[in-house]
Amino acid sequence: MTAPAPFKVKTLCRSTAARTGTLQLARGQVQTPVFMPVGTQGAVRALPPHWLREVGAQIILANTYHLHQRPGEALVERLGGLHRFMATDLPILTDSGGFQVFSLRKKEISEEGVSFAYELDGKKTFLSPETSMAIQQTLGSDIAMAFDECLPPESDFETTRRSVDMTARWAERCLKAHTKPEQSLFGIVQGGMYGELRRRSLAQITSLPFDGYAIGGLSVGEGPEKMNAMLAETMPHMPTDKARYLMGVGRPQDLVDGVATGIDMFDCVIPTRHARGGAIYTFQGRIRITHAKYRRDSYPIDTACECYTCRNFSRAYLHHLFEIGEVLGSTLATIHNLRFFGDLMAKVRASIDDGTFAALRKDIHALYPEKEEEGGKEEARRRFAEDALPVEKPSKSDTRPDTSSKAVRTEGRRSEVRPERAESRRSEVRPERAESRRSEPERAARRPEGRDARRDGARNEGPGRGDKRAPARREDKPREGHSGRRDGKDSRPTKKVRR
Amino acid sequence: MTAPAPFKVKTLCRSTAARTGTLQLARGQVQTPVFMPVGTQGAVRALPPHWLREVGAQIILANTYHLHQRPGEALVERLGGLHRFMATDLPILTDSGGFQVFSLRKKEISEEGVSFAYELDGKKTFLSPETSMAIQQTLGSDIAMAFDECLPPESDFETTRRSVDMTARWAERCLKAHTKPEQSLFGIVQGGMYGELRRRSLAQITSLPFDGYAIGGLSVGEGPEKMNAMLAETMPHMPTDKARYLMGVGRPQDLVDGVATGIDMFDCVIPTRHARGGAIYTFQGRIRITHAKYRRDSYPIDTACECYTCRNFSRAYLHHLFEIGEVLGSTLATIHNLRFFGDLMAKVRASIDDGTFAALRKDIHALYPEKEEEGGKEEARRRFAEDALPVEKPSKSDTRPDTSSKAVRTEGRRSEVRPERAESRRSEVRPERAESRRSEPERAARRPEGRDARRDGARNEGPGRGDKRAPARREDKPREGHSGRRDGKDSRPTKKVRR
Repeated sequence: MTAPAPFKVKTLCRSTAARTGTLQLARGQVQTPVFMPVGTQGAVRALPPHWLREVGAQIILANTYHLHQRPGEALVERLGGLHRFMATDLPILTDSGGFQVFSLRKKEISEEGVSFAYELDGKKTFLSPETSMAIQQTLGSDIAMAFDECLPPESDFETTRRSVDMTARWAERCLKAHTKPEQSLFGIVQGGMYGELRRRSLAQITSLPFDGYAIGGLSVGEGPEKMNAMLAETMPHMPTDKARYLMGVGRPQDLVDGVATGIDMFDCVIPTRHARGGAIYTFQGRIRITHAKYRRDSYPIDTACECYTCRNFSRAYLHHLFEIGEVLGSTLATIHNLRFFGDLMAKVRASIDDGTFAALRKDIHALYPEKEEEGGKEEARRRFAEDALPVEKPSKSDTRPDTSSKAVRTEGRRSEVRPERAESRRSEVRPERAESRRSEPERAARRPEGRDARRDGARNEGPGRGDKRAPARREDKPREGHSGRRDGKDSRPTKKVRR
Repeated sequence: MTAPAPFKVKTLCRSTAARTGTLQLARGQVQTPVFMPVGTQGAVRALPPHWLREVGAQIILANTYHLHQRPGEALVERLGGLHRFMATDLPILTDSGGFQVFSLRKKEISEEGVSFAYELDGKKTFLSPETSMAIQQTLGSDIAMAFDECLPPESDFETTRRSVDMTARWAERCLKAHTKPEQSLFGIVQGGMYGELRRRSLAQITSLPFDGYAIGGLSVGEGPEKMNAMLAETMPHMPTDKARYLMGVGRPQDLVDGVATGIDMFDCVIPTRHARGGAIYTFQGRIRITHAKYRRDSYPIDTACECYTCRNFSRAYLHHLFEIGEVLGSTLATIHNLRFFGDLMAKVRASIDDGTFAALRKDIHALYPEKEEEGGKEEARRRFAEDALPVEKPSKSDTRPDTSSKAVRTEGRRSEVRPERAESRRSEVRPERAESRRSEPERAARRPEGRDARRDGARNEGPGRGDKRAPARREDKPREGHSGRRDGKDSRPTKKVRR
């Protein structure tokens, strides 16, 4: 038994399959398309949760696999459930743990479920459709996800077909095992990199009475072209009357592309993880606050942003915090990045409603290009800066530097252009290949620097769903995010020698 | 030229030399006795500064030595001064850098000043009364401190006498070099562990027209008995019409003892540093939130506390955050600890005004004993718990566990007693000796666990003024707090293996 999560389409885009809508949950209404910040282990990292609403979050993510291990769902329930535990009254979606388990190398998969040893203490654990449902119901999330098998993108056709069929049988078991009336349950469409199998999985999963449908197994290292090809194969056949959720995506350019295919929900660790490495998202492009050019920069990160960080602090102050390794820098950057993703989705919704989504999508692609040659960045920047003009922005705080809108735009143009270009050239080298030439210690050394999401396998703070190389690397100690100690390291920005 | 910081005594304690008063600064009135949180490098660590007022901070500290190195006072001035840089409108006191410089091993001291190489990049630096004044005036703090020489506590009489006399000559030079009309300037009394020299320094310094007088060179590893002996030699001779500031102190028991001698101002890194290690201060005693017994504890840290952390989170949640190494734990613990110190000083002021300070002091000593035998802990706990009774505390938030005052007190009694005792026995071993038996790597491994303040040399986040062993250990790389990287490590709680 599940709680229907009624989804109502509000506006359909005329030039793409984008749509706005509302998803009604027991804890409130979610305006879609929506981006969901990730709080894998019961905390959005470095963020006191009272900021969630201020940054525009409407619903957040947590993870079954991680919370089952620590602190355990029984304890969370005893403490009043996941919302009280984390001190948020926002709706929470829990991922099923399927992705995390399948990113471990040592596991035994059978029709029944998956056995594995927990990487921190070797504790033997068994997860199945039934146990995953039980855990998620005990945690008390608003939306539970079906327990699925998620394959690496290079899996062959036959393996993928068998997996798709098992995921479908598991989906039925999930529905049967789900008994909590106030929790919604979403199914997950798989199918690897095969359009035929994507459609096969879609037919299987959407024939079952889930409250919403997710697309899994993408953004796992296959690259944006393949991902978009798979979305194109799948999305036209998705039911229109239920919410559609693209798991583990993504970068700003992926979000607008996903929206254009009709996706309503996204989640990704990019804004939080990159913040801790000093990579900051703005409507002028992405900046690395650790760069020497920000040392003396008295402007806020983004003069058009209303977040606590931009209202109160200069780029120079953030640069200083990262330079001295002060964790306050992580918190302030996280607040800003989440606000950027919140604002981006608000702009997406508004643009669908007023018929300008295609133009917005183009601008986002110009600011966050796959390849620099795509161009148009300057024009896009000007448009976002002009967006901020009509309302004469009042000074938000005594401590805010003087930022008349004119100064803002000039500054934006002057200081962003050249380095951003240099950066995007660097990061758009075919990342997997470039990286695979490096030794693992080298890669590890590069890790905390807030790299490109796709390289980063940035979907989850746990074993990387977003990471093609995961199975080959993981064994019983997934590379990232998983253990407190390793996470602690990740959150420390790279130390820079001062010039 | 300095800005007078008019100090008015409000109430004199009848049984001790304690007093309440007000210190008038350009940025507002400070109620004394006051505890000043430390933001050495321009940030109270792990604390978004909008929380400063909520935790009861009235004035905060920053450091000349650190800010001179990074990001440099000229840049801070260009960015609008220290207050705008840090985004706080609270008054700021800057320490002169004297203590930090003298904790370095490689330095050349002359009548003129001190030369040294900055420990991070080897940059040659010269600090003197004149340069320290210039830096502090450029930073734009509300209270500047005179540039003094601070000796290790084991220095001999003759060395200390010469140092005291030079500090007096430097004090005159500071007054002459100080030209900023809106900044107050405090002198610092030194004199090592010699009562005669303390009085000599006091006569020299208080004969000069400073706006307030500080006592330096204590809490540097000499132990509470010697410190109290030196205070007893000095305080009766301090001018009564100006604010008196005991630098680098301290623990709750040191605060009430200092107040009893007539001290008006304190600063210490204990609340912030210990928070990052999971050592949490309450009116039931100090707890280690990393202890297994808090794993399932649904109560807030302190049921009588009104801070954001206690209003929203359980001990079990904080325990979980420290267990997974999530920095949000540092932030939440910092908020609580600073609020505890703020509340403690508010209680101290109220008790002086209503004639009950001696009783409060006794209770604090019972909860934070030098030796467990002192006893009375249970009675003191009950009194603080009863303090919270008259007002039936309304639930502060939906997420707060049910904490009827009865349950609270029972819980407090039940869960605190035995482990606290065990802990205090452990920590009251003569700390320096116990520690010196260990190798440096062993000590390093123990560092992040929020050790006893006195052992920790916890006065400053930079080279430890509070640390007797500092000169022997420091060389050009002070042990703690100084480099971003090392600080990053400190803030990561020790990883625990789950049982």
